[in-house]
Amino acid sequence: MAEKEVKLFGNWASTYTLRVEWALKLKGIEYEYVNEDIPFNKSEELLRLNPVTKKIPVLVHNGKPLAESLVIIEYIDDTWTKGYSIMPKDPYDRAQARFWAKFADDKCMSAMYSVSTSSGEAQQKMLQEAREAFQILEQALGSKKFFGGDQIGYLDLAITLLAFWIPILEEIVSVSMVDNENAPLLKEWFTRILDVDMIKTSLPPRDKMYELSKQRREQFFSGQI
Amino acid sequence: MAEKEVKLFGNWASTYTLRVEWALKLKGIEYEYVNEDIPFNKSEELLRLNPVTKKIPVLVHNGKPLAESLVIIEYIDDTWTKGYSIMPKDPYDRAQARFWAKFADDKCMSAMYSVSTSSGEAQQKMLQEAREAFQILEQALGSKKFFGGDQIGYLDLAITLLAFWIPILEEIVSVSMVDNENAPLLKEWFTRILDVDMIKTSLPPRDKMYELSKQRREQFFSGQI
Repeated sequence: MAEKEVKLFGNWASTYTLRVEWALKLKGIEYEYVNEDIPFNKSEELLRLNPVTKKIPVLVHNGKPLAESLVIIEYIDDTWTKGYSIMPKDPYDRAQARFWAKFADDKCMSAMYSVSTSSGEAQQKMLQEAREAFQILEQALGSKKFFGGDQIGYLDLAITLLAFWIPILEEIVSVSMVDNENAPLLKEWFTRILDVDMIKTSLPPRDKMYELSKQRREQFFSGQI
Repeated sequence: MAEKEVKLFGNWASTYTLRVEWALKLKGIEYEYVNEDIPFNKSEELLRLNPVTKKIPVLVHNGKPLAESLVIIEYIDDTWTKGYSIMPKDPYDRAQARFWAKFADDKCMSAMYSVSTSSGEAQQKMLQEAREAFQILEQALGSKKFFGGDQIGYLDLAITLLAFWIPILEEIVSVSMVDNENAPLLKEWFTRILDVDMIKTSLPPRDKMYELSKQRREQFFSGQI
């Protein structure tokens, strides 16, 4: 069988990889998936394809490699222009989607991570920052069904990992980052996005991720990582 | 006189603001410039226009505000489609430009900042990381005249601030981050880009920035900032 035109190097537990998989699925693009054993046993091929950051996901299209999940999503939408539109069509809306995706990556992801790797007073401070960040992120959603409007788009793909991870981490560290008090619309979107068929059927098993994250938190506090 | 269609909120010493100004100039777009007194005396209007990050630059086009310099550059190229092309036309080249701009912002800027706000052994470690990051960044240039090819493009606008700041900071902290040993082509590009008329005539005065940065370093070490 001929090699597929599109190849994706990722990891089964990586929600960054999933961002790209969802974009490929929305476009109906067939691809070959290569699971990488991260972080300690990366393949020679991955290191050759992405010598700069050495990270997954990497998309290879007709032999040409691309890294950074959000960059790859835009590339997919730019290259397979027919069918589903992932990026908003209007330049202003497109810019806003990029702005919020950056805000989510810079502020929300790191806030979520800080809360889950801290304790005591430091955690309370981080928690307050996280709650504020999510309250701000909610503004990009407003009363829409999805961040993309009536259908999911770039920003939904970018931040679905929050919908998946936050409830798990809230349970592990016994705090509330997104709730009806600070971000009710965002909380509803969490439920709505996780119920989209393509998302629901592709996320890694919740119980497995819960256990892995709990272990990582313990290793973190015992200084093993 | 009627209010201009395009308004830019920035600061005279901000090379992030300059990124946007250069994009506007390349497109030949007239704009009104509003200097913001950052970080301690931001205008009410700026806070209203960018309540999320409260940062400059903010571009207002027909009353609609946009923040984040790289997002704004793409918006400008997307909106004023005639004339000078800032983004590469080919989707793969466009994705690569975005990838490298992210690498420069995430790795090179922070490495440069870390070197200039550290000392002793910690600084030596940071310096090694910085030199490696610049060596990697040089790969995106290769033997081209500019990162955009024969003419300056998105990535040139994104990283010109390195060409301006690195020699100043190297002088202040007496180290070498970019030289003929680790990144000769990048070093040549520094000279070449700073000699482009539009760039040369818009940068803030070097001696003033040198003094300001020196003061900030002293304040940093005395714990005042």
